[in-house]
Amino acid sequence: MARASAHPMQGLVKYHGLKDPVKRIPYHGSISVCTDPLESITSVEFHEGEHDQIEIDGNLISGRAFERAVAVLDKVRELSGTKESAIVHSKNSFPQGVGLGSSSSGFAALAMAAFEASGADYDMKLVSETARLGSGSACRAVTGGISEWLTDDSGSYSIQIGAPEDFKDWSIIVPLVESITVTEKAHVEVETSPLFKARLDYIEKTLGQMKDAVENKEVEKIWKLAEQDTRNLHAVTMTGTEGLFAWNAATAEIIHRTTELREEFPVYYSIDTGATPYLNTYREHEKQLISEFRETHGVTDILVCSVGGPAKIL
Amino acid sequence: MARASAHPMQGLVKYHGLKDPVKRIPYHGSISVCTDPLESITSVEFHEGEHDQIEIDGNLISGRAFERAVAVLDKVRELSGTKESAIVHSKNSFPQGVGLGSSSSGFAALAMAAFEASGADYDMKLVSETARLGSGSACRAVTGGISEWLTDDSGSYSIQIGAPEDFKDWSIIVPLVESITVTEKAHVEVETSPLFKARLDYIEKTLGQMKDAVENKEVEKIWKLAEQDTRNLHAVTMTGTEGLFAWNAATAEIIHRTTELREEFPVYYSIDTGATPYLNTYREHEKQLISEFRETHGVTDILVCSVGGPAKIL
Repeated sequence: MARASAHPMQGLVKYHGLKDPVKRIPYHGSISVCTDPLESITSVEFHEGEHDQIEIDGNLISGRAFERAVAVLDKVRELSGTKESAIVHSKNSFPQGVGLGSSSSGFAALAMAAFEASGADYDMKLVSETARLGSGSACRAVTGGISEWLTDDSGSYSIQIGAPEDFKDWSIIVPLVESITVTEKAHVEVETSPLFKARLDYIEKTLGQMKDAVENKEVEKIWKLAEQDTRNLHAVTMTGTEGLFAWNAATAEIIHRTTELREEFPVYYSIDTGATPYLNTYREHEKQLISEFRETHGVTDILVCSVGGPAKIL
Repeated sequence: MARASAHPMQGLVKYHGLKDPVKRIPYHGSISVCTDPLESITSVEFHEGEHDQIEIDGNLISGRAFERAVAVLDKVRELSGTKESAIVHSKNSFPQGVGLGSSSSGFAALAMAAFEASGADYDMKLVSETARLGSGSACRAVTGGISEWLTDDSGSYSIQIGAPEDFKDWSIIVPLVESITVTEKAHVEVETSPLFKARLDYIEKTLGQMKDAVENKEVEKIWKLAEQDTRNLHAVTMTGTEGLFAWNAATAEIIHRTTELREEFPVYYSIDTGATPYLNTYREHEKQLISEFRETHGVTDILVCSVGGPAKIL
């Protein structure tokens, strides 16, 4: 039996759309930052039972989520040679289905624990590549810090391009709002937008700018690019055939208030496929932001995060 | 002295971006529908005074708005041969600055009254082309009903492609919400979006679809295309360098509630450069929509409109 933990992440140059939905190969590279102390803790035990059994936060899962987990376990079984079934328990320290990326941390911890429990040799590249089969973003939750998901001919996995200790002053405030978008649906929808091809061109340029900013530890540039990419991503999603508009009233309120507050100090919003914004700022402004948004209608709770490390064996 | 009235309009295939900002030549054609009973009533009197004097809703205007009106008056003076100054009074039956397009109806009524007062020969094409010098959309407020703004080598003016009497069952519900976007700024911003060129391609196709729908009097298709174009337009605006996001909390609330209500009956939202949505539906659903949105936080009033005719001399 092995146990591993991983942090979910905030997208910085956001991933959207899969060229190969089965192998989860994306159309383009992407960069994200892990959010500590949010985490998924997952244990895997191989045994001689007939079926895999997977429990998340106390509930046995089935259907699509189960199939995705089995895809990860199958890959580990293939590489380690084991034929045994797995018993998996996973626990999240944060709410699911609000756009915080619980699938990224969940599959990262699952892949890590499964390799460890299987007894096979593995490295972070392999864990990253395998976690990706469950959830694209999970490959970046494996490598942690600020990670880039590469997609070239040699494979599709993530590498860390910014270490948590280099970004100690970066605070990530998360006012939780109710989310309605289903991420997998959004990934399919994005391709139907007449603006999607233009996003692909924009992404190439933005990835380069973001990597430079990370390398030079220019946090405000990172935040600004992430905010810009937020609008670009949602612009493309909302122009798909189903017109998925993920932001609700609270999101709109927070976007406008954040833009106003920026007249006073550096603060930038960033929103993944859901409705919940991440507010990127310096530690010294945490308290003001919490008090600003505590009473906002539709905000259920406010989390405070910092840049988290890679997945690890517990 | 002459007096004219004109209705403002809801964009259907929305205009955005000017190839020539002085002559107000747009990048692409556009289609809109006039909203009755909203109207601007404008009187023009030529006299021997030294300067033009322009009053809107009781206030003498200056600056950019004044210059735009003088551009229209100058064109009328050029064509009619008069050298006299004008005294202009304009009155709007609806609030300005909330995204209802008061500049479109104001400049349409101004051009119409100015030609009539000048004693020159004129036709609707000439009025349309002249009104455009004050505000692009004004060319369509001149011709009324459902109008298309053409932009070819022979000129840039509007023609009516759908008559009000063919769309008697179309109700336009307008929940007024506070608007913050400045339209002229939005027109400049749109060109800076990496998605703008993709919008130009999409527009060509959409214009054809919309014209077919108008010709065949398929109102629900018109509404659906207008809603789709709303998302496309705002997607492009919000990805410009300034990230102009025009929708506020009330707008987001109305978008989501309208999408839900569509499960019950045909209703589609459409939003021009501001935050105020137009809800397109059949007359029989007016009451339900008014009661749905009367209590929505941020909605200050609800207007009920129908398809209005062209500008006319009173």
